[in-house]
Amino acid sequence: MPVNRQILFASRPKGWVTEDNFRLVESPAPSPAERQVLVRNHWLSLDPYMRGRMDEAGSYAKGAELGQVMVGGTVGEVIESKSPRFGPGDMVVGALGWQEYGVSDAGALVKIDTSIAPASCYLGILGMPGVTAWVGLLDIAQPKEGETVVVSAASGAVGSVVGQLAKIRGCRAVGIAGGAPKCAYVTGELGFDACIDYKAGSLYADLRAAAPRGIDVCFENVGGEIFDTVLQLMNPFSRITVCGLVSQYNLTEPYAVKNLRSVLVNRVRMQGFIVSDRLDLWPRAKAELAGWLKAGRLRYRECVAQGLEAAPTAFIGMLRGWNFGKQLVKLI
Amino acid sequence: MPVNRQILFASRPKGWVTEDNFRLVESPAPSPAERQVLVRNHWLSLDPYMRGRMDEAGSYAKGAELGQVMVGGTVGEVIESKSPRFGPGDMVVGALGWQEYGVSDAGALVKIDTSIAPASCYLGILGMPGVTAWVGLLDIAQPKEGETVVVSAASGAVGSVVGQLAKIRGCRAVGIAGGAPKCAYVTGELGFDACIDYKAGSLYADLRAAAPRGIDVCFENVGGEIFDTVLQLMNPFSRITVCGLVSQYNLTEPYAVKNLRSVLVNRVRMQGFIVSDRLDLWPRAKAELAGWLKAGRLRYRECVAQGLEAAPTAFIGMLRGWNFGKQLVKLI
Repeated sequence: MPVNRQILFASRPKGWVTEDNFRLVESPAPSPAERQVLVRNHWLSLDPYMRGRMDEAGSYAKGAELGQVMVGGTVGEVIESKSPRFGPGDMVVGALGWQEYGVSDAGALVKIDTSIAPASCYLGILGMPGVTAWVGLLDIAQPKEGETVVVSAASGAVGSVVGQLAKIRGCRAVGIAGGAPKCAYVTGELGFDACIDYKAGSLYADLRAAAPRGIDVCFENVGGEIFDTVLQLMNPFSRITVCGLVSQYNLTEPYAVKNLRSVLVNRVRMQGFIVSDRLDLWPRAKAELAGWLKAGRLRYRECVAQGLEAAPTAFIGMLRGWNFGKQLVKLI
Repeated sequence: MPVNRQILFASRPKGWVTEDNFRLVESPAPSPAERQVLVRNHWLSLDPYMRGRMDEAGSYAKGAELGQVMVGGTVGEVIESKSPRFGPGDMVVGALGWQEYGVSDAGALVKIDTSIAPASCYLGILGMPGVTAWVGLLDIAQPKEGETVVVSAASGAVGSVVGQLAKIRGCRAVGIAGGAPKCAYVTGELGFDACIDYKAGSLYADLRAAAPRGIDVCFENVGGEIFDTVLQLMNPFSRITVCGLVSQYNLTEPYAVKNLRSVLVNRVRMQGFIVSDRLDLWPRAKAELAGWLKAGRLRYRECVAQGLEAAPTAFIGMLRGWNFGKQLVKLI
């Protein structure tokens, strides 16, 4: 049995996550039981939702348990299979967590086709983040041609897809991101119409200039003051998809939102959502995303940390916005 | 021509409305032009939305203009008609404002049937407030049997109907109101399952006890700290109808909401709405409300101020929650 390195959830963060909240351990790789599969993970996905799991309660999923392997999406190669559905060498996507090897029920794995896109894409644009963008924008917010769509964390794994889908739908896409390099990427490579640097200190004025006809759709990934500012510019009958509030996850006291009256005045529809509630839409979303990706209409960027031991630092950096594109850990 | 007494919008309030914001004037009653009708108003409706109109901007409707008659719903008798649709003696509902006589285009008036209910009901349970409750609860929030519905300002014109409709739909109805007498009325006469006195100082604990299975529908009339507390108890996939934020209308700085994360965590759908956006539903809502009223399944209470000159004081009192039931002014 090969040695399996794992990162355990060692202690609950109070406020910001620190490296002390994790512990690296080694143990023999497990053996699959009937209908199970042993996978060697090639890629680990790091996503903001994981921060929610580290809290005792208050997040949508059950809090993670101390002493267990950190949860996380993975792509890897089947090493040993006790299921007729998979054979050695198959590449699969699953949720095996922060470890180099993992055993999973066969039903919880999906085979991927690396002729369509590299394996890592199944953790990004063709995986949970891409489908999140698709469902939250196209199914929930339903932008119409000519409308203005604003998305925060615009250079991130979800936000980058949201804006590109908005463009495909004929909308004006306005991103919000932190710093000039990210903004240049969002307007240059991703093709958004505008991108606002929230660190520049003039968010309201900049947003107003970038959305001169107001905001019809807000795809919210960040929350806090950025969201409060966006609220001031929402149009009548506009929609807000609340996908994430990453600015709030490490605060012990949440930011208090002042402009909620806009919801009443403008008859805004605000909908919180989690992509796992809409598994029914997953195949259609993935097929459309793959089609646009092949057609060159969707672009992405990855931010890759090397080796399992780099995962905690990379995760903390992502929560602080230091990554640029989809945050991954390359395990081999 | 009879003398017409009118209350004009004299100055914009800064924070709380005061009597100085109004001015009583007298002038000859106007004459109707072609297709117009002269109405002698019997009843004037006072409603929270009027406070929004007194602000320069920021409300859903255009701000009221200084020097003009205050806007408001009215019921009255046709005195003179230049329209084939109405004759003298007809009772009509319209929006003739804070005055004893008014001229209106015939198309903006609706004849009422006082054999179904007293004329004043067409400003309350069979009028805008009743239809607001119907649309906001039944069309927007769509409570299912067995769910828990919480409504703030529960003894008011809208809230009292919301809770009774929730009971008709087989839900648990929980009201929030200010003071023991209102709460006793809400549970006693209106038949809510529980009513919480937000002035008692233990809103969260009381609400939790009254909604032991959490909250599936919140019909929000008040906003501020009450709404922030309700947010903490929303269930997964729950709905919030934002109908009013009366606690906020007289503040120069809005209350800042801390618990918006609940929208994400619980995948809450929040929808701001104004009943005038849904004129299509008005006939069906009114017919159903009239049916339940005749069947004795809906009850109401009116709070009546006497004479046009009493309107400003009654309006200010309503904004402070001093009324008990639908606030009206009896003009003759």
